[in-house]
Order: sequence, then C-alpha cells, then structure tokens
Amino acid sequence: MPPSVSVFGAAGFTGALTARLLQRHPTFELKCLTARSDQGRRLDDLYPHHRVAIELEELDLDRHADVDAAVVAYPHGAAAPLVAELRARGVRVVDLSADFRLRDPDEYGRWYREHQAPELLADAVYGLPELYREDVRGASLVANPGCYPTASLLALAPLARAGVIDDVVIDAKSGVSGAGRAATDKTHFVTVDENLNAYGVPRHRHIPEIEQELVVLGADRRITFIPHLVPLDQGELVSCYVTLVDPGSELDLGRLYADAYADEAFVELASGPPGVRDVRETNICRISAHRDERTGRVIVFAALDNLWKGAASQAVQNLNLMFGLAEAEGIGVTAWGGRQSKFNEAMR
Amino acid sequence: MPPSVSVFGAAGFTGALTARLLQRHPTFELKCLTARSDQGRRLDDLYPHHRVAIELEELDLDRHADVDAAVVAYPHGAAAPLVAELRARGVRVVDLSADFRLRDPDEYGRWYREHQAPELLADAVYGLPELYREDVRGASLVANPGCYPTASLLALAPLARAGVIDDVVIDAKSGVSGAGRAATDKTHFVTVDENLNAYGVPRHRHIPEIEQELVVLGADRRITFIPHLVPLDQGELVSCYVTLVDPGSELDLGRLYADAYADEAFVELASGPPGVRDVRETNICRISAHRDERTGRVIVFAALDNLWKGAASQAVQNLNLMFGLAEAEGIGVTAWGGRQSKFNEAMR
Amino acid sequence: MPPSVSVFGAAGFTGALTARLLQRHPTFELKCLTARSDQGRRLDDLYPHHRVAIELEELDLDRHADVDAAVVAYPHGAAAPLVAELRARGVRVVDLSADFRLRDPDEYGRWYREHQAPELLADAVYGLPELYREDVRGASLVANPGCYPTASLLALAPLARAGVIDDVVIDAKSGVSGAGRAATDKTHFVTVDENLNAYGVPRHRHIPEIEQELVVLGADRRITFIPHLVPLDQGELVSCYVTLVDPGSELDLGRLYADAYADEAFVELASGPPGVRDVRETNICRISAHRDERTGRVIVFAALDNLWKGAASQAVQNLNLMFGLAEAEGIGVTAWGGRQSKFNEAMR
Amino acid sequence: MPPSVSVFGAAGFTGALTARLLQRHPTFELKCLTARSDQGRRLDDLYPHHRVAIELEELDLDRHADVDAAVVAYPHGAAAPLVAELRARGVRVVDLSADFRLRDPDEYGRWYREHQAPELLADAVYGLPELYREDVRGASLVANPGCYPTASLLALAPLARAGVIDDVVIDAKSGVSGAGRAATDKTHFVTVDENLNAYGVPRHRHIPEIEQELVVLGADRRITFIPHLVPLDQGELVSCYVTLVDPGSELDLGRLYADAYADEAFVELASGPPGVRDVRETNICRISAHRDERTGRVIVFAALDNLWKGAASQAVQNLNLMFGLAEAEGIGVTAWGGRQSKFNEAMR
Repeated sequence: MPPSVSVFGAAGFTGALTARLLQRHPTFELKCLTARSDQGRRLDDLYPHHRVAIELEELDLDRHADVDAAVVAYPHGAAAPLVAELRARGVRVVDLSADFRLRDPDEYGRWYREHQAPELLADAVYGLPELYREDVRGASLVANPGCYPTASLLALAPLARAGVIDDVVIDAKSGVSGAGRAATDKTHFVTVDENLNAYGVPRHRHIPEIEQELVVLGADRRITFIPHLVPLDQGELVSCYVTLVDPGSELDLGRLYADAYADEAFVELASGPPGVRDVRETNICRISAHRDERTGRVIVFAALDNLWKGAASQAVQNLNLMFGLAEAEGIGVTAWGGRQSKFNEAMR
Repeated sequence: MPPSVSVFGAAGFTGALTARLLQRHPTFELKCLTARSDQGRRLDDLYPHHRVAIELEELDLDRHADVDAAVVAYPHGAAAPLVAELRARGVRVVDLSADFRLRDPDEYGRWYREHQAPELLADAVYGLPELYREDVRGASLVANPGCYPTASLLALAPLARAGVIDDVVIDAKSGVSGAGRAATDKTHFVTVDENLNAYGVPRHRHIPEIEQELVVLGADRRITFIPHLVPLDQGELVSCYVTLVDPGSELDLGRLYADAYADEAFVELASGPPGVRDVRETNICRISAHRDERTGRVIVFAALDNLWKGAASQAVQNLNLMFGLAEAEGIGVTAWGGRQSKFNEAMR
Repeated sequence: MPPSVSVFGAAGFTGALTARLLQRHPTFELKCLTARSDQGRRLDDLYPHHRVAIELEELDLDRHADVDAAVVAYPHGAAAPLVAELRARGVRVVDLSADFRLRDPDEYGRWYREHQAPELLADAVYGLPELYREDVRGASLVANPGCYPTASLLALAPLARAGVIDDVVIDAKSGVSGAGRAATDKTHFVTVDENLNAYGVPRHRHIPEIEQELVVLGADRRITFIPHLVPLDQGELVSCYVTLVDPGSELDLGRLYADAYADEAFVELASGPPGVRDVRETNICRISAHRDERTGRVIVFAALDNLWKGAASQAVQNLNLMFGLAEAEGIGVTAWGGRQSKFNEAMR
Repeated sequence: MPPSVSVFGAAGFTGALTARLLQRHPTFELKCLTARSDQGRRLDDLYPHHRVAIELEELDLDRHADVDAAVVAYPHGAAAPLVAELRARGVRVVDLSADFRLRDPDEYGRWYREHQAPELLADAVYGLPELYREDVRGASLVANPGCYPTASLLALAPLARAGVIDDVVIDAKSGVSGAGRAATDKTHFVTVDENLNAYGVPRHRHIPEIEQELVVLGADRRITFIPHLVPLDQGELVSCYVTLVDPGSELDLGRLYADAYADEAFVELASGPPGVRDVRETNICRISAHRDERTGRVIVFAALDNLWKGAASQAVQNLNLMFGLAEAEGIGVTAWGGRQSKFNEAMR
C-alpha cells in the first residue's frame, strides 16, 4: 500500500506547492490538506496553476493525522506544537518551519521565541540531503532547511570541509515569493517592481542556522549575511565572499567542487555565474566557484528556486529518503536532465 | 499672495503624487496634508521618492479648510460629504473620486451607491481640460475624470464629434498602481508578475462616465469596455475599436486628429502605436489612429500615465485653469518638449 | 522500437523547447538537433534550464533525415523547402512555421511570399487537435498553428459552430518570447520593461489563418485582430469581442462551452477571466466566456503559453496523435491535473 | 550669452538623457547632437519619452566643435581621440567614458587598452563633485565617474577618510540600462526577466577606478567588487561590507555620515536600507550605514540611478560647476526636495 501523506498549512506558497508535488508523486498518496485560512476553498481556486482539486480543511487531528507522513508548513513558532501532536501519534514529519533546525533551544530562543517542543530536538534531523542523507533516511522528524541556508551551505560546504575558510560574507538576493503569501506594503507590486533593497539588516534569522551547520562542516565562524529583495517571483542567489585562512594558497576549486558534488542529482556545477532562471521550478542548486587572484578571495555563487529546492521539492526529496524511495521521485528534472524515468532507476 | 491648497487623503497613490506636484509648484502654496491612515507619519516616510517632508494629519476641517483650494483624494462615496463641507466653507475643490463625474445621481446610484451630495452636481464641471477648458476656468468644483475615461475620451472625441461612430469596443490595459495602495491578493507581486488578465467583466464603473461624455460629444452609444491588469507599475493603454456608421466612407484620420489636438500641450499624436513608457511620469496622452482597410474599422490607441494624466497631474492642470495660471505650470514636460519656461510663456 | 525524431532549427525558443519535451518523452527517441546558428554549441549552453546536453549540428539531410519524424522550427518561408526534402524521404513532419497553415497558396502569397512547396498543401493538416484530431492521426504533414490562432480559435469555435457570430474583434496580448530569440531594439529589456504597446497594426499575419479556420467552423467573416506586447516572458491572452447575429438572443454560454470542451484534456473552462500565469509552462488553454447584458455582446478570453500550447507542446501533442500514442504523453499536466500516469491511461 | 553645449554620441542611453537634461536646462543652450549610428533620425524618434526634437548628425568637428562645452558619450577607447580634438579647439569637455578616469596610463592599459591621449591625463579632473568640487569648478576636462564607482565611493568616503577601513567587499546590483543600448543575448528581455546573476567575475573594469580613489581618501586597499544584473530598467545598489582596522572599536556612524554629507544636495542619508526606486530619475545617491555588532563589520548601502547620478545628471552637475552655475540647476529634485527654485538660490 502506498504511504499516505497530508499537508498541514497548504494555503501558503510552500504548502501549496508541496501539495502539488505530492499529488502527482508516483508513490505517495496525498490524503488531505489543512489550512489556517481559506477553509472550504479548493486549492485550485487559490492557485489555479497547481491544479490540485482538493478542498482546504480546518485542522482536525483525529481525521488528518491518520497518515504515514505529514508535511507541516506553518509559521515559525506555530509549527512546533502541531509537530509534537503528529509525532505523538506516530506520524513521520517534514517540518518547513525553523522550529527544529537549531539544535540548541537557547539559540532558538535568542532568534525566535521560547521553544514549544524542545524535547523533540534530539530526534530532529537537518534535512539537507546532500549533507545528511543517511540521517534523513532513518529520521522520523526532519527539519527542512531555510532557503538561504540551503543555498549558502551547498555553496560553502566544500570549502568548509577543506578547512580553508577564515571569514565569510554572504550577500543574498531573493525573489518576492520568499516573503510569503501575506499581502503587505512590502509585497505590493508597486513597492517591489523596479526596486531593489536589502532587508533584515543586520540580524536575519537564517544566520544561526548557517553558522550551526558551518561548525559541523568544520568552520566555526561568525558570518555576515545580508539578504536583498529583487523584483522577480521565484529564485534566489547567494554570493559568498570567502577569505581564506591562507589567502595565497593554491586551491583547485574545480576539483574540490567536482569531488563534492559529482554524484549529486540536484547540485549542478557551472563554469560561469549561475542565473536563477537556470533553476526555476526545479530542485536543482546551481553553483560556480571563482578565485579572485588580486585579493586571494574565493567567490562562490549558488542559485536555486526558493519555493522548490529552498522549500517544497526539498521536502519531497526528504520524504523520498525517509520512505526508501528513489531520491528524485516526483520532483522533476535533475542536474543531468534527460529522461527522468531512466534516472529514477539509477537513483534507487 | 499665492493661492493656498491642501490635499485631503494624501496617503494614497494619487493624493501623494498630487502633494508632490503642488509642493514644487511655482505658484501654489501647499498648506497641509490629511490622511485617513498613517496620521503622524511624514509623506516622505511612506513615499521616499516624492520627497515631501510634510506630516500626514487627521482631518480637522477648522484648520485644514482654511485654504483657497483643495484636492480631495478619497474613495468613491467617501468624497462627497467632505467635498460638501469644503464647498460650504467656500473652498474650491478638485475631486479625484467618481462622486461628481456623473451628472445624473440616479445613474451614479446604479453603479455606485446613493449619492451623498446631489445638490452639488449642478455646479460640478467634468475636468477634462481638452474638452471643457472654459468651464473649468470658472469652476468651483471640478470632478477629475477617471484614468480610463481620460484616455478613452481623448482617443474617441474627434470621431465622436465627426459623427462617424456606430459602435465602440474599448480594450483597456493598466499597470498595477491603478488598483491603489491597498495590499491585497490582487496587488501582491507574486499575483501580478508574469501575469495578465481581464477584470471587472463586464460592468466596470468607468463605463457610464465614458458613455455620458460620448453623448455630449455626439455619440449616444452603449459601449463595451473591458480593462486588463498588466505587470507594470504606472501606465495605461486603451485600444479603441470603432465601427463607423458608414464603414466604407473616406476619412482623413491624420487631419481629423491634428485639427482636434494641434494646440493641445498635453496631447501628442504619433504615427505608430504609442507605448506607455513614452508618457511615463508626464501629463501627456499619446494617441495614434489607424484605419483597417479590410474591415473598414478605425482603431485608436491612447496611452497615458494613470497616476499623472489619469489623476494627479490632471488635477493640477485643472487647478491651474481654475486659478488663471498657465495651464502647464508645475506639471512638467509638454507634448512639444523643450524648455518648459519658454512653453509656459506661450501657454499663458 | 521507439519512433525516432529530430528537431530542425533547435536554436530558437520553440525549437529548443520542443527538443526538451522530446528528450524527456516516454516514447520518442530524440535523435539529433540541427540549427542555422550556434552549430557546435550544446543546447544546454544556450538554454541551461532545458538541460538538453546535445550538440547543435549543421544541417546534413543524409544523416539527420534518417528518422521517423521531424519537427521543423524554421522561419516562415525557409521551412517549406526543408519540409519538402523531408517529406520526399518519407519523414513525417510537424512544421512550426506558417508555411503549410493556409490552404490557398495565393492567400499565403498575399501575406508572406510566393509559396515554395505548394504541391504539399493538399496533404497538410492544420494541427489544432481539438478541431482536427482525426485528421492529425493519419497525417504525414502537420502545420502547427500559430500561437494567436490557437487561442483565438479555441475561444471562438463553440460560437462559430453555433452560427451566432456576426462580427469579431480580437485584442491579443503576448509576452516577449513570442517575438523570438533575435536580439533587437524591440526585444531589448529596456524597451519592453514597464512598457505596453500594440504592434503589427492593422495587418498581422495571423489574420488569414484565423479567418480560414472560422470559415470552416461556420463563420465566414473578416475579423479585426490587433496584438500587443506586454512585459512578461511567456504567456498570451486573447480577448475576443463577439457581436452576435441576434444581439438579443438567449445563449447558454456555460453549456455551449462545456459541451464543446468537457472531454478535452488541454482546454480548461474557468468562471472568471483566465490569467496567463494559470497556464504557464503547460499545454493548457484556459477559457472563460461572458455575456455583456448591456450590449448583448459575448466576450471570450483565452490564455495559453505561447511557447507551449502556442508552439512546442502542441507540436508534441500532434506527434503523439500521429504515432498513435496517448495524446498527453510527455507534455505535462492536463486541465484536470492530478496524477499524469492515471490520466495517460484514460487518454489512450 | 548662455554657454553653448553639444552632445557627442547622443544615440546611446546616457548621451540621449544628457541631451534631454541640457535641452531643458535653464542656462545652457543645446547646440547639436552627433551620433555614430542613426544619423538623420530625430532623438524623439529613438526615445519618444525624452521629447528632444533634434536630429542626430554625423560628426563634423568644424561645425559641432564651435561650442563652449561638450559632453562626450563615446565607448571607452573611442572617446579619447575625440576629446583630444575638442580640447585642441578649446572646448571644455565632460567625458562619460573611462578614458580619463585613471590617472596612470599604464593602469588604464592593464584594464582597457593603450591610452590614446595620455598627455591630457594631467589636466583631467575626476568629476565626483562631492569629493572634488573645487577642482571641477576650474576644470576644462572632467572625467565623469563610472556608475558603480560613484555609488561605491560615496558609500565608503566617510569611512576611508576616518582611516578605519581594513578590507572591503562590494556586492553591486544594477538594472539593465547599465549594459547600454546594444541589443544582445544578454539584454534580451527573455534573458533578463525573472533572472538574476553575477557578471564580470572577478575582474570588472570599475575596480581600478574605485581603488584609485580610495587611495586618495586614505584607504590603500585591494577590493573585491562583483556586479550583478537584476531585472529592472534603471537603478543601482551597492552593498559594501567593510572590515574595520579595529573590529571592536566604537564608531558613531550616524555622526560620521551626517558630518560628511549634511550639506550635500545630492546625497541623502536614510535610517534603513535604501531602495533604487527611492532615487529613480534623480541625481540623488541615497545611503545608509549599519554596524553588525556580531562581527564588528560595517555595512553601507548606496542607491542611485545609473543613468542619472551614475552618468548623465552627474555630467550636468559637473557642467554647472565648470561654468559657475548653481550646482543643482536643471537636474531636478534634491535630497531635501521642496521647491527647486528656492533651493537653487540657496545653492548659488
């Protein structure tokens, strides 16, 4: 029998996309969609292009938790109590919020609020498959990474593991879908169109998540991270400026990155700077690394679709791993393109 | 002493732009700005690019009505009572709402709601200077036309006066600023970006305004008018498809339009279809007229900036006329470009 | 053995997308790609997001025509001689150009140039599957319709067949990809961005194609058709203004369109005006029909993706039919969404 | 008699805008426009929105050099010989190219090509009025700065003068008009729209210009500078990441920047990150400076319009200074908004 899955919080951008991917997934059976607003409306009324003809329901755990897996797309803080209830009923969970990304509840408290389910943190796996694939396979609770950390960590991991990072500045740029579905002055078309500005200066909440993982990778550093809003819908680019421990050292960037990612279906190495169009509506993170000979600095760019690899399709990638499926099932094109079916066999 | 003017409802797009134009106007003295939201904030906090360092105040007629003139930028329905109060105190008013555009209060009632100040309708002048210049000069209450009617009527007036119109379809396209400052699903960047759709089908409220004026011009016809939303900020284009009374008749469109508009500072005739970029941030309406020899139809395009000629700068044009100033004062470039100062002399 | 197919002219937007769809197609085997420019470059160098790692080759019929089927994506006029050569070698062809759309070579001559292969016109089938499905199944030469005609004819067919059309005005709007890959003043970002204008006034070449098919459907009428360029990438909307033979007649539009399209996998009926985002990167044409009670007119909107249903995915839909495959194979989501695999079974 | 001025190379974006500003300038008399393409066309045919009804002429120095001043808007390398000819005839020149920005011809040779008029370098003044106002006043040859250097230097000057800069990373973002009028794959709407990428990695030609001026200001450092292309027309943002000599030091950024710029009409200090919309079509550079307490780093943002303060309006600002006029004449709004006429008096 195919594993069943519900999406909790399907009225927002990432929840709705997750619902679409799961409904067309070859293996999972999408059971139901809950939402904290718009109950009673069908998802294809809110998002015609997703073509998911399922009604959004008010949360009723007795009915909705009778599934093998859940994707929770609630806001930070609101997710933890729901995740706790789902876990108590034995449901395996991928959580799109930040609530289980930071291993230290005190650190979570410093950047968000008091943690609502600290007892679950020990079980939570940070769901970046390219770094924690084996942990995800056995996990019952996966914290899906933030969109900026996904791009930043994939960009920096090879350097961090090589132990060469002395200092990092990350200048990030994101399309407007990253700000979510809420209609505000900041997401009004007239505010964003033909505009460009930094935000969240200088303490954006994705900083501790990036720093936590850099420590694991071998770079215990405080980073500077500044995001910018650009006038486009989906897409995110991080430009990472890395000062090396030894600025004059030799470093074969091509080999370093190829060694790290040659077998990764969803990391694509490019010789020139990647554009966000290159990865739109895919689960692919496209990366290029460059040496600035004048300053010795290494510059790494990583582009992804913030709603896909930065959220929904990475959640499905995690679900695939958790349930022993081929990692690329139901997610779409891989870094090596071609016929998906052939690829799927290879990935099993 | 320079005439003083206040803007009522300056927190919205059109009120704020009117404030900017009046603050830099060579003759008018901008006294104060009121708003129904954001009181206490400075206008340059809401709209940095307007650079108007004036605080938005809560309405206090005793203080704010002590001016020679007022521009009212309230929503339809809410404007009429305020206009009545201002008129009662002898303030000359340009009203940006629809409340005084329709001469027949019953017709107003059919499209909006019961009229709140029908006794003022007889005094109200429809403020399209190119059609009613002399009336505006003596007016104490000017109803500033809607953006779509401004473009449509300037496009159709020469044909209507020539008595050749049998039927009209107007397909209109507008940028998002026309939807106003309210942050809604419809104005969210992600809704609008890379999108394009009709709205207000098939009964948009600008229809009775266009039909009323076409009657005056000599064309008593029911029209079809459909607006569309396009992914840009400021700009509006109407494409008018005119079936002639005699489809096979000769018609020298070039001469007809040149005769109508050669002396108009803010109407620009083009040989090819106008683009909205051509008129962005100007008070100019750019028009081209074409004959489709295969069908006999006449096609007229008119482009303008919905916030400028479609609202705020046309309001200032009306104020200039009402106070005996040069018509182009403080509005910016004219259809014949060049040195504004030289032009101003010519226009006196 | 799977049928083999080559794409001729794969460096342009529509040829490249066809190559992508065919490379991932479950049944067809993509053999090779030719191009009239960029020979020697790989397609994923020109278009990274398509992820087709195949080199563009200079045309060599001896090698490239050894296939079961060909998609020709050459400019109008240049296509006919190549199609003739391919047909002479027994290759079944879908031609994306206009060269085989008009059944009358004289009419072709009036809008384009002298026809280069008039002897093939008798065999050519107009490849709009929703109108000519059975003809396409047996065809060896399919003329893939223009993007505007596809949208316009799907919008108007139910009315034309019902014999109620007296007159039609089509106001069309298209994203910039419709202008093709050539870098010109007209496709420069700075020309298009925040702009909006009509073009091809008043004799756009898609007119005879629409009129020809309307005659077949029962409406022998000269139409007015005016396209506009809007600042977006992919997407096209036609707004059709139909004057009825009897403007006062009853007409159950809902039933008329449902009867016409209920079983069509790639026509989607909507209650409100469709947006081009709703159909982006799909083979779906989304349609809504409205009655304007004031004028008696019927207004029909149809939205599609000009590169997909307007070109490349419709070409694959035609290929599927020509080779007896399920019509939706390899094209992506259908109007009723859901699991593609289930749908595919239903469509066989 | 008013000083006369010609624009050489008026068919490009910056030359055309300079022509528009000078034609409406209260003092200068615009004599003629030359172009290397499009001779015989009127500028308002190429750029309707500029409304400059002057014909573009082929260069004829005998006629065109009979002026008091010239603005040269030629490509790098092509400008120097023309500037030399103009200077030989006694014409005072503002050059928009890079040819006279670098004081060292060898350095110029390393980044561009062999210098064509090194003998003029000694006389050339770097035309950033906020840094070199007095030098510009007496200059006969002014090298108008690059758009990125203008923003970067205004952002960094207060810190450089304070001697606190240890290291700088500049992540720059620009709209597409910065790439110029040439229609290429890179400026095609479909390439840029919904896209975002770095370019010129890692050796963009604006680097030596920024480094040269930082030395003058007191910071002899090699910098990292990476520009990005964003999907908008006009507007540029630089995000400067400054490592301090003493990362733990106290620094009153508010006072430092206010002291530097309080009297500058075209520098605007903001408390939050500036957006490029805030400065669109103005000569204003809007700046905010922030301390990241976690890392000790200083982050400075500067936004400007690349065609205005980054090129054309700064050229007019320089011309004003060279001819003893009020600095803000004919350029438009200043950082303190309000009535331009009042301001102009203050600036004399």
